[in-house]
Amino acid sequence: MVEKRKPIPVEEAVQKVMEHTVVHPQTEMVSIDESYGRFLAEDLLASHDVPAFDRSPYDGFAIRAEDTNEANSEHPISFEVVGEIGAGYVFEGEVKPFQAVRIMTGAPIPTDCNAVVMLELTKEISDKKIEIKRAFKDGDNISYQGEDTKKGTVLVEKGTQINPGVVALLATFGYHQVTVAKKPVIGVIATGSELLDVDEPLAPGKIRNSNAYMIIAQIERAGGEALYVGKLDDDLEACLNATKEALSKVDMLITTGGVSVGDYDYVPAILNDLGADVLFNKVAMRPGSVTTVATVGEKAFYGLSGNPSACYVGFELFVRPIIRRSLFCTHPHLQKVTATLGVDFPKVNPFMRLVRARVSYVDGALIVSPSGVDKSGIVSSLGGADCLLLLPGGTRGYQKGMSVDVLLLESTQGSEWPWNNIVPSYR
Amino acid sequence: MVEKRKPIPVEEAVQKVMEHTVVHPQTEMVSIDESYGRFLAEDLLASHDVPAFDRSPYDGFAIRAEDTNEANSEHPISFEVVGEIGAGYVFEGEVKPFQAVRIMTGAPIPTDCNAVVMLELTKEISDKKIEIKRAFKDGDNISYQGEDTKKGTVLVEKGTQINPGVVALLATFGYHQVTVAKKPVIGVIATGSELLDVDEPLAPGKIRNSNAYMIIAQIERAGGEALYVGKLDDDLEACLNATKEALSKVDMLITTGGVSVGDYDYVPAILNDLGADVLFNKVAMRPGSVTTVATVGEKAFYGLSGNPSACYVGFELFVRPIIRRSLFCTHPHLQKVTATLGVDFPKVNPFMRLVRARVSYVDGALIVSPSGVDKSGIVSSLGGADCLLLLPGGTRGYQKGMSVDVLLLESTQGSEWPWNNIVPSYR
Repeated sequence: MVEKRKPIPVEEAVQKVMEHTVVHPQTEMVSIDESYGRFLAEDLLASHDVPAFDRSPYDGFAIRAEDTNEANSEHPISFEVVGEIGAGYVFEGEVKPFQAVRIMTGAPIPTDCNAVVMLELTKEISDKKIEIKRAFKDGDNISYQGEDTKKGTVLVEKGTQINPGVVALLATFGYHQVTVAKKPVIGVIATGSELLDVDEPLAPGKIRNSNAYMIIAQIERAGGEALYVGKLDDDLEACLNATKEALSKVDMLITTGGVSVGDYDYVPAILNDLGADVLFNKVAMRPGSVTTVATVGEKAFYGLSGNPSACYVGFELFVRPIIRRSLFCTHPHLQKVTATLGVDFPKVNPFMRLVRARVSYVDGALIVSPSGVDKSGIVSSLGGADCLLLLPGGTRGYQKGMSVDVLLLESTQGSEWPWNNIVPSYR
Repeated sequence: MVEKRKPIPVEEAVQKVMEHTVVHPQTEMVSIDESYGRFLAEDLLASHDVPAFDRSPYDGFAIRAEDTNEANSEHPISFEVVGEIGAGYVFEGEVKPFQAVRIMTGAPIPTDCNAVVMLELTKEISDKKIEIKRAFKDGDNISYQGEDTKKGTVLVEKGTQINPGVVALLATFGYHQVTVAKKPVIGVIATGSELLDVDEPLAPGKIRNSNAYMIIAQIERAGGEALYVGKLDDDLEACLNATKEALSKVDMLITTGGVSVGDYDYVPAILNDLGADVLFNKVAMRPGSVTTVATVGEKAFYGLSGNPSACYVGFELFVRPIIRRSLFCTHPHLQKVTATLGVDFPKVNPFMRLVRARVSYVDGALIVSPSGVDKSGIVSSLGGADCLLLLPGGTRGYQKGMSVDVLLLESTQGSEWPWNNIVPSYR
């Protein structure tokens, strides 16, 4: 008996996953040294004004601007040098008319001064005497307290992935411990008696287990933590027990293989035994149409295809946004952008195709072309892919030069919801 | 005495660094589990054909196509089911005329068969009997050995960063140990008596050490390994000793601060004492004009500015490509793309400006706008930057809508040499 499954549109499938599965976001403190690549669990606030005090942006001399009113190249004005301030020090003395203080970049302006003259614009007459040949105004060359940033300003929003610039901000504002989102733990099970371990020699009828390793890297890229449960033979009892045990340890569980309607495809039986709610078991997309997502309580159970490309796509569409949402991301989906199609796709398909592809930038425009032969069994195109090209299902093919939507795999930005108004559409 | 320095163009400065400094690439073996994000030190070759044997792409029945010649919907033809093959198993028996073997997706085709009929196109009459209602041709629904990939094909080139798709390929072809580039070790020293540790409270005249943490994250992003030497006061003897000791332990050394011509800027004195060859000490760019790069033997010594933005830019321009080259990358520089300027830059500057900016994608075109106020002292714009906008020095400003070049900070692609023909130019 062949079970009949009703495919649902990709948009609806993603929507169901977002609505019915939950990984409750959790936070933890990490040292700033370990914060790169993690996700902020709180807005990053300026803990003080920047600059924190009025300071000199240059090496030079701090003076009272009014003393230079009469200066010009014919009539330089002399100043007595009464002290010097290295960065990190404060000048406590008084600065009287026609006196100057040698000041280093970043040092605080002496109370009596209101301008800085750059070193290059002064003439050193002696150790204690300089000349200035032009007039300066009150405020010239002073970086005022708070002019860059006011205390309390939100500098980076919660849910942002920490890049080197964010690390600089964390350090500047004294966050030696950083509150980040805890990585959700995702279990990975590969099924199929045809699977060999990576270090086993190839044998007749067998293939090596590539999906588990791929998914583990995808989990890392998305910001989660993988728990590799193992590679299981096509044995219902063993699969069931492993699934139950894994579910108790993880925030969500991914299996690959066993999702079809073949005699050795145990996912339906396992889900039945677990009392799972099946959100869908067929999606109107290629590859990956046999993707199953179910919930066991609030936890998501992903039955991804055993086919590498289908598995890859299923992960990015259905697992990644749940991981990212648990990291406080407001844009948890892959970033959607519009690009120009670089090749023809004459073949008609009733399902949405997600083609492993690569973007290039030509004169300010984005061009997208497949990264390899697009058969779902072909892994070689996965290595070079940096995006998924979306070709909505319909009654016509697509021509080179058309505007199409793509989902960027490696972008640090994301999409809030990429599934509206996919272009072009022949529906 | 103010030392006079002659600024050299950015292109020339990068060229000098590429020509005069060397980090000899080294390799190491890592487990496939730890390979994600590393750089391939050898081409990834297909170690066998894909498929490795003729296999079924579907669940169905393997048959001899010639037996279906007379089949149509009025006259279905019966086949005797003589066995079944799960994925991972081989059918050793004989298949005679009008016999069929139940076959699972991925299983090897029995020697006597030359076509597969999908399960959905068969009618199960009994356990041992099916009916087929149309004719099939020799080769229908068979994935032939080697049709995806021939043994020996280069699938991914040396120098490529390992992404999840590459991990899948490594697993498929049995690379449980992967030869990757060893991470170069880069020493980091922050100088300046004004610097506080991140966990110290702010004090008059002081700022926290943000550059060291930022650089360490930039090193990680570029693919290197940071060795944080420490934060030093403005003390020549201490700086000199720390520098000497650090140089003996690292592949290259970065200092921040102390590169200007101020009284506490010790980099020139240190380089003199080390007998270093100074490649340049002033670059015609903003921020970062006082960047110094020297060689001590073959090792690069980077004297980056103490100013956070200048330091950030100096790293990406001069340090990153040296790290990436040591990782076998053929495109070691930041990826250059052309974009449309989103705002006016009326101010004229004789030096090339590198503005911290952010790209957005609007209808297939790239738009670039500053990520914050572009003063070199302002760190807040660094957090949101995903590119550096290049505005060549010249005699005119730039208007919204012009084509400009940008360097993408987070792209997984790179540039072989981005510094030719920067647009627009008023020189």
